[in-house]
Amino acid sequence: MEITIAVDAMGGDHGTHVTIPAVLRFLREHADVDVVLVGLPDAITAELKARKAETGPRLRLHPASEIVTMDESPQSAMKNKKDSSMRVAINLVKTGEASACVSAGNTGALMATARFVLKTIPGVDRPAIAKMLPTRKGGETCVLDLGANVDATSEQLVHFAIMGSALYSAVQHVPSPRVGLLNVGEEEMKGNEQVKGAAELLRRTHLNFIGNVEGDDLYSGNVDVVACDGFPGNIALKASEGLAKMMSDFIKEEFNRSLLTKLIGLVALPVLGRFKKRVDPRRYNGASLLGLRGIVIKSHGGADELAFYWALKQALEEARAGVIQRITDQVQQQLADLSAAPADAVQA
Amino acid sequence: MEITIAVDAMGGDHGTHVTIPAVLRFLREHADVDVVLVGLPDAITAELKARKAETGPRLRLHPASEIVTMDESPQSAMKNKKDSSMRVAINLVKTGEASACVSAGNTGALMATARFVLKTIPGVDRPAIAKMLPTRKGGETCVLDLGANVDATSEQLVHFAIMGSALYSAVQHVPSPRVGLLNVGEEEMKGNEQVKGAAELLRRTHLNFIGNVEGDDLYSGNVDVVACDGFPGNIALKASEGLAKMMSDFIKEEFNRSLLTKLIGLVALPVLGRFKKRVDPRRYNGASLLGLRGIVIKSHGGADELAFYWALKQALEEARAGVIQRITDQVQQQLADLSAAPADAVQA
Repeated sequence: MEITIAVDAMGGDHGTHVTIPAVLRFLREHADVDVVLVGLPDAITAELKARKAETGPRLRLHPASEIVTMDESPQSAMKNKKDSSMRVAINLVKTGEASACVSAGNTGALMATARFVLKTIPGVDRPAIAKMLPTRKGGETCVLDLGANVDATSEQLVHFAIMGSALYSAVQHVPSPRVGLLNVGEEEMKGNEQVKGAAELLRRTHLNFIGNVEGDDLYSGNVDVVACDGFPGNIALKASEGLAKMMSDFIKEEFNRSLLTKLIGLVALPVLGRFKKRVDPRRYNGASLLGLRGIVIKSHGGADELAFYWALKQALEEARAGVIQRITDQVQQQLADLSAAPADAVQA
Repeated sequence: MEITIAVDAMGGDHGTHVTIPAVLRFLREHADVDVVLVGLPDAITAELKARKAETGPRLRLHPASEIVTMDESPQSAMKNKKDSSMRVAINLVKTGEASACVSAGNTGALMATARFVLKTIPGVDRPAIAKMLPTRKGGETCVLDLGANVDATSEQLVHFAIMGSALYSAVQHVPSPRVGLLNVGEEEMKGNEQVKGAAELLRRTHLNFIGNVEGDDLYSGNVDVVACDGFPGNIALKASEGLAKMMSDFIKEEFNRSLLTKLIGLVALPVLGRFKKRVDPRRYNGASLLGLRGIVIKSHGGADELAFYWALKQALEEARAGVIQRITDQVQQQLADLSAAPADAVQA
């Protein structure tokens, strides 16, 4: 099946200067996919021309006259920018003209607009932001929610677990991913009421629930899907980004200390390069807005060409794997399991 | 003033095999401090003998007949182990025979026992676990709470901020440390109700409150004290530990890939060694249990000699700086500022 991806060409800190070269590379490297660039026609054609590229059957242009700015409130974007590149790209998913959309625009506006246009999957109250992270064992761990919700209820944590499991299973081809609940300790009595309640519910589903996991398990490779409230999830992700940046800075500083260390750095460059590639955050740029009736991928606003390219790849993988149908089915099935459980056991 | 530190010699995964060599090194390197080793006399004297050391005026032995195990519940430790090395070490702080105590024993038991024996500072409901973390700018950031409390109220978050500020000011010699609240965004409207309420209260204190900070600010050097609930705090800290471990593993793997990369590794060893030292978690091992009427330092259970040595240094620094008095004064003063504010402005 031919897959079409709608791209908010104007979103992010660098707009078309990043989105368009990333799309051109993506099309070169993936033969079975089309892209619709959504945004101001003049800006898009100018950038295409600068890159010696043009529209054609695999690269179409869909005009949109407005741009949601990076600091615009979700309310303002929803109310005043009905013809924004972000919204029109989401509309294309809604109408079926695109299988997925990708935007580097502001997260709040993207989430609010996507939720309004696409609606949530039956049974899911609130969408979540999910991301794959690298692990020590070489695989990936899916973590959600990363900031769409604060104060998630036990039921919402269960929804996150189900959706993350369905996504991981579809994209990583693992039949029954190990699902953990992020907590301050592995023991059952640890944590707040929401997490304890969620654990009780998860034990009644048919998910492969392995119990509580701790912060270091985001990278341990001992769990495939980590469900958490968006508050600790967001903080853990950003703390990781901050620490990785600090460690990279320190390595650079040490190799720049003197002429000798700079020479050593030159010798070590191929090894350091391979290390850098393995932890390159750009490879983990595409975050999925899960729980919607359509695939929406959020790229980091400051993404460069390579980072945006990886967000496009994430969209393609999810479209190919049919994740929306799989999440819809999983939610329906697991929630049915829960309501079939004895009434007094379910914390409503 | 001569400072005496009471050491729970039996605590941690390795007991006297780690605590005693660390203490011996600590005494060699710090002339103005005494240590009381608390624990089973036979085990302590055997380890001292193995290290060709003996007790004397600067290294005394205080017997205790029991050991709190690493997986023991706080309740069991409190009820059944009244003569444990952990409890007796804390008793020595209570009676004034020691200025601080250090234990690598289990956190829950240590917190519960310390709270029971020492009591909290007037105005503080719940103690918090605080730790210094390295930053990109070379300084340190104090983060609390790291897991003693989940579901902290706005008022408790304010207490954490006051205590962290007093600690940072005393130990880092900064008159008015920048205090931030850990949140999912910098904007005022972000976050959960507890954080929003705490921000409102903090603006009415005389702390140098700079507003919300995000996860990456734990390492940015843009803030000196980060106050947070123990749930996200613990998760952010452990996620950082997990990521740092993964990155170290990856560096090792890349340098171990072939004979050539191993040779390159040998050449780069001095530079990599300096880098490793800068991010060595053992240097940040000592966590402070703040809010008690005495200095209690928690060492990681798996600490080695160097890590435990750094926990001893943390205890000494805090004792020298008179942090308990400074925290007590700060709490009293800042809470007085808050109650002097218009009644309708204070969220009780």
